[in-house]
Amino acid sequence: MKIIADAMGGDNAPLEIIKGSLDAKNEYGVDITLVGDEGVIKACAADNDLDLTGVEIVNATQVIATDEEANSVLKKKPDSSMSVAFRLLSEGKGDAFVSAGNSGALCVGGTLITKRIKGIKRPGFAPILPHFKGGCFMLLDAGANLEAKPEMLLQYAMMGSAYMEKVMRVSNPRVGLANVGTEKHKGTDLQHKTFELLEKADINFIGNVEGRDLPNGECDVVVCDGFTGNLILKTYEGTAKAIMFKLKELFGKNFKSKLAAGLVMSDLKNMIKEFDYHEYGGAPIMGTAKPVFKAHGSSKAKTFKNAIRLTKEYVEADVIGEISKAVK
Amino acid sequence: MKIIADAMGGDNAPLEIIKGSLDAKNEYGVDITLVGDEGVIKACAADNDLDLTGVEIVNATQVIATDEEANSVLKKKPDSSMSVAFRLLSEGKGDAFVSAGNSGALCVGGTLITKRIKGIKRPGFAPILPHFKGGCFMLLDAGANLEAKPEMLLQYAMMGSAYMEKVMRVSNPRVGLANVGTEKHKGTDLQHKTFELLEKADINFIGNVEGRDLPNGECDVVVCDGFTGNLILKTYEGTAKAIMFKLKELFGKNFKSKLAAGLVMSDLKNMIKEFDYHEYGGAPIMGTAKPVFKAHGSSKAKTFKNAIRLTKEYVEADVIGEISKAVK
Repeated sequence: MKIIADAMGGDNAPLEIIKGSLDAKNEYGVDITLVGDEGVIKACAADNDLDLTGVEIVNATQVIATDEEANSVLKKKPDSSMSVAFRLLSEGKGDAFVSAGNSGALCVGGTLITKRIKGIKRPGFAPILPHFKGGCFMLLDAGANLEAKPEMLLQYAMMGSAYMEKVMRVSNPRVGLANVGTEKHKGTDLQHKTFELLEKADINFIGNVEGRDLPNGECDVVVCDGFTGNLILKTYEGTAKAIMFKLKELFGKNFKSKLAAGLVMSDLKNMIKEFDYHEYGGAPIMGTAKPVFKAHGSSKAKTFKNAIRLTKEYVEADVIGEISKAVK
Repeated sequence: MKIIADAMGGDNAPLEIIKGSLDAKNEYGVDITLVGDEGVIKACAADNDLDLTGVEIVNATQVIATDEEANSVLKKKPDSSMSVAFRLLSEGKGDAFVSAGNSGALCVGGTLITKRIKGIKRPGFAPILPHFKGGCFMLLDAGANLEAKPEMLLQYAMMGSAYMEKVMRVSNPRVGLANVGTEKHKGTDLQHKTFELLEKADINFIGNVEGRDLPNGECDVVVCDGFTGNLILKTYEGTAKAIMFKLKELFGKNFKSKLAAGLVMSDLKNMIKEFDYHEYGGAPIMGTAKPVFKAHGSSKAKTFKNAIRLTKEYVEADVIGEISKAVK
């Protein structure tokens, strides 16, 4: 299996991307194509004693920044690492594409260059988030399409279920509809119509879920429009991050607090690890005709390696084939 | 000043409501009218050695539960404590109304019985939330109107600014528009049109804010439609609560962890206090012609007392007069 990796995408590119890709190559036996400025990649590898033997490098002279306008940037920068990688994927020169770069551009490229699975209306951005019962859930859409129709939410539910079952190995994944209350009558017209579709669908629909249900692991897949999903995602991550930061401050304050930290260190580390998105690796763009995977923007080597592992399982489990059958 | 208190609303009614009301009466010199089942209120006070001297009791035989359907319940239960309290407020038999009961019903009653401030399109549910820089911010609308128009969000911004300035004493409150990115072009048509209105308004508009900005105290007022606001509110509170629960578990685990807890106890308590909504008391229903205030559903006496203090300041600062002038 060949994984195309965007060597220039993410806060820690190219070093951590190269490292993570090499680790994945060694651990999972995948072939790697690194896309990016060949000179920069080779120099970075040499400076850090990384052996690129057996790794294909495809040169791309431009780089897309995280904050560039997603809709047009791939056209504006045809020789960016992301644009070139999408072309390689389309031409069948790799089985899947992983990038830690601009999420919006990745959704746009996934939709317009890789194209959609036949029958899928819109691909969704689908981050996998840890919850506090020791597992994780998929939130989709988290921003690929800000406005949604009931049929789109139904497809998100089907795609999320297939991914969670096949890749994350959750049996009979529980699907929830993000809403302002658990009762069936809650929400707007979008939620009412979606509720009816989800009830009839061949999925394990558990009904409406509220914001407070998510950290408690009440479901395995949460569906909503991309505007709501993006605000849920960032509020969720931001709140957890702010509290973890506060805790670090508290435990590093003085001798007494450092002593306390020592006493509970392993438990604290476990708690932080449980809630660490680096463990989960990122977010597939669900609905594209070939696997496109977004690694977290702040990916270190371990995160990127995990993203490649998930992408490999995404290919092996033929999630895209499953989705194709389901939407026929 | 006379405060009408819903003695039967909230998870800890009537005991904690009576206690909190009495404490507010003693501390802030306000008059109190307790509305609810007179027999139950008097028995509860007697059982707990609470002195009701000087407190007016208005009998109401019905109770509205937290999960009852908000739109119709006030009509269905005309002798509920909430319905009777709204009537007293309308008839001028009190200066403001505070309840820890059904939020939805309180929004409906505020809109239909108390009526709106002239010129205000829709009242908004406006919880005040703690952030991690040691202050708080107002989120509105958090669920009174699931769908919004740009003019409604503009009015939310003006009302939130007036409240934060006059009651919470924040000078020149920073107003943010909840969005999926900080750039002006982000969001849907609602955000684009609202952005233009907010830019021109006589408020301190700081632009779009993302979910991750909220826990960091990036603004004092956040405006959005009620659907998004409700999911932000519950994700925010739910995530913080889940982590605090995890921490409690961690520190109570064994002798070593309890020792550690002892060493950082005062700092931990401060951190938990900083993020404790009981300190902030609740949420005004902004836009009603007379002050209607929602105390947190799980209010203990202290929370309810704080809610009455904020309501008193809401009346004294004539926030409603300020809003009336602003929307003329």
